Amino acid sequence: MKECSHSLSFSQLGRRATEPVITDLMHRALDNAELLSLAAGFTDNITLPVELVQCAVNRMGSELREPDYLQYGTNRGRAGLLIEVANWLNASRGEVASERFSPESVFISNGSQQALYLAMQSLCDAGDIVLVQQPTYFVFLELCRGLGIRPVSLPALPDGGTDFSRLPDFFLKLKREYGAERIKAFYLNSYFGNPSSRSVPVEEKRALGRALIDHAVSVPVIEDAAYRELWFSQPYPAPSIFSLPEFEHLPRLYLGTFTKPFATGLKVGYGVCSHPQWLERMLWLKGHQDFGTSNFNQAIIEDVMAAGEYPGHLERVRANYREKARLMGEALEGSTLRERGWSWQQPEGGLYYWLRAPEGMDLSMGSAFCEACLANGVLYVPGDLCVAEGEPKNFARLSFGALAREKLTEATGRFTAVAESGCRE
Amino acid sequence: MKECSHSLSFSQLGRRATEPVITDLMHRALDNAELLSLAAGFTDNITLPVELVQCAVNRMGSELREPDYLQYGTNRGRAGLLIEVANWLNASRGEVASERFSPESVFISNGSQQALYLAMQSLCDAGDIVLVQQPTYFVFLELCRGLGIRPVSLPALPDGGTDFSRLPDFFLKLKREYGAERIKAFYLNSYFGNPSSRSVPVEEKRALGRALIDHAVSVPVIEDAAYRELWFSQPYPAPSIFSLPEFEHLPRLYLGTFTKPFATGLKVGYGVCSHPQWLERMLWLKGHQDFGTSNFNQAIIEDVMAAGEYPGHLERVRANYREKARLMGEALEGSTLRERGWSWQQPEGGLYYWLRAPEGMDLSMGSAFCEACLANGVLYVPGDLCVAEGEPKNFARLSFGALAREKLTEATGRFTAVAESGCRE
Repeated sequence: MKECSHSLSFSQLGRRATEPVITDLMHRALDNAELLSLAAGFTDNITLPVELVQCAVNRMGSELREPDYLQYGTNRGRAGLLIEVANWLNASRGEVASERFSPESVFISNGSQQALYLAMQSLCDAGDIVLVQQPTYFVFLELCRGLGIRPVSLPALPDGGTDFSRLPDFFLKLKREYGAERIKAFYLNSYFGNPSSRSVPVEEKRALGRALIDHAVSVPVIEDAAYRELWFSQPYPAPSIFSLPEFEHLPRLYLGTFTKPFATGLKVGYGVCSHPQWLERMLWLKGHQDFGTSNFNQAIIEDVMAAGEYPGHLERVRANYREKARLMGEALEGSTLRERGWSWQQPEGGLYYWLRAPEGMDLSMGSAFCEACLANGVLYVPGDLCVAEGEPKNFARLSFGALAREKLTEATGRFTAVAESGCRE
Repeated sequence: MKECSHSLSFSQLGRRATEPVITDLMHRALDNAELLSLAAGFTDNITLPVELVQCAVNRMGSELREPDYLQYGTNRGRAGLLIEVANWLNASRGEVASERFSPESVFISNGSQQALYLAMQSLCDAGDIVLVQQPTYFVFLELCRGLGIRPVSLPALPDGGTDFSRLPDFFLKLKREYGAERIKAFYLNSYFGNPSSRSVPVEEKRALGRALIDHAVSVPVIEDAAYRELWFSQPYPAPSIFSLPEFEHLPRLYLGTFTKPFATGLKVGYGVCSHPQWLERMLWLKGHQDFGTSNFNQAIIEDVMAAGEYPGHLERVRANYREKARLMGEALEGSTLRERGWSWQQPEGGLYYWLRAPEGMDLSMGSAFCEACLANGVLYVPGDLCVAEGEPKNFARLSFGALAREKLTEATGRFTAVAESGCRE
């Protein structure tokens, strides 16, 4: 095929797009078959629901009804799955019965990633500001930048909580610099969040809701709960923003997913939106992009949930990640990293350890530390990627999701060996 | 759940979005269970590959390898499927061996709809112009308008071919009015196209390529071949733009799909792009939107193709639509519509009849004719929706895709009954 070298003029959006960081990390991994990746947010192959999916497909195929599950569905999602999602959320720990999630507010997306994109597209023009936590989900930061949106971190305490004492100055400065009207949304990662595995305590969540109102920043709040189901010993007790009165007067979007807890390969997520006009706009945009997520994949999940097989599956998934978190924790504690001034929390859910290296150390992409890790056959996510402002640089995200147990210990050992070698620039 | 009535300020894109026409049509259909829809571009449930999908899932599940098919894939698509797609296209009738489609240029999308969206996002800013045929795929027109893009029809002959004699004036006027630099792409629906089922003869295609160059409109060409596989007696002989030298110096994007010919419910399409930078930009945008189409659905199609089961499936699909086209044709010819001045071509592939009512008749949404059809229990797509300029209004698209055979004849009868009643405003 003749490749074309015609010089093309791209749109503003096209010109603004950049290679996702994750692609670069993946290429590095592919170049070296011996490399062990603690970077990818992949799930563990051994927890993938091979039998459940097979049974569901066979059940659907053997029924005498029309094979509508292989046909186009609707743009918003399968009616049966919307009900399953609402029921599931209503039964979640901490949710208040009087504030029930309703199926009419639910929509299905291509993973929660697409719902994030639709939310940002519908709310923000280039130059607008979205408030985020520090650290936050790095693919969301890229998504924002791709749309020309400026993510700005709320002031944070060393433990990752919000530093409310600095909020008044923060908002004053932000409004003076960009104009209050440019602040368009608050993105909240609140359950075993990526990358820190931190959950937001109910008091902090409530205070965040109050702070938005108090500072006249009554913007839509997007709660990303992608890891909520992946608790180890108990569900995190804080209710979602849908059950907290402090958020009652703000437009709310709650995002969940069946990717991480069920199968990433099915790419089915969901959103629940409190604001009918906002929901409508997002769905109209989705109509232009694909007019509906794969109906087949939705039908599989609906079938598994209707058969009551989802909770048992989650039990197996949780047990696996609990054990793998323990293994990685053991490997980390068995090293001399704490003595050398590194620190971390033992996660209570999710897929990640969030390591803080001593002040002044540089773990960013291309740093001597990062190159030494690559040379030693291990990959991680440099923590600066997870902060809107691109620093501090002394953090690393290690995932215990994908690697098999024996390799997980080996990979963690490779990482701690580099850290122990005192590698500095 | 408390709905939120907070007044929200949407982005420009969010404000520009409108309810898809198709949603409105669907709502009308849902309100009346007796209504027979000749509007939807759905495929026929009896041709859906229930057993093939079941077998593929069972084969994949019973293999001893890692269940990677339930895991995240890559943003561009499964390596094996990219090769299957390239091989399939290279073996298509009319393609020139020396211009082979290469797997490196292929990417997988959520139906070809997503690929169209990515193409438009990457090329066009609001206010830009895309050249289209008259008529053209109406969801593409909506997609463009949603992005603020202006679709403009090339001058057409009564048979739907390009009126080359009017091209010089057309381009002169367009450039004078908007500026040459605002013309950003040409969207070409060339195989049994939606809505007219017309294919573009090779001489016309070549002349279109020359005309773009001659008029200094060297814009990217997007060839939408969604219906190419759905031929009745033989593949349409014209090669794609990838095998025609007239397009060699233009950036080219060829779009195909496994939705219509295999299963709409899997929502898997593909694109082949001749321009590496353009491909890259589209993939970066896709990275923000979902970082990859469902790996599971790709694996199913790859497995079916690798097992050599796809051609046999297509045979069954084609036989079914050939027979249904014959049935609808019989119902139309059995009416008095031709005597009353209606005209149409017997389609040689695709899913649609494109009917031309006598000049001056109005079949548009909300017209007396349209309302009479609804009252008589039949739905069609008003032809004006399929033309960028919104007229003429004396066309209708009737789909023989979804309805079962006996209902198809009944529905066509309901439509011709209204037409024979001489319903006019």
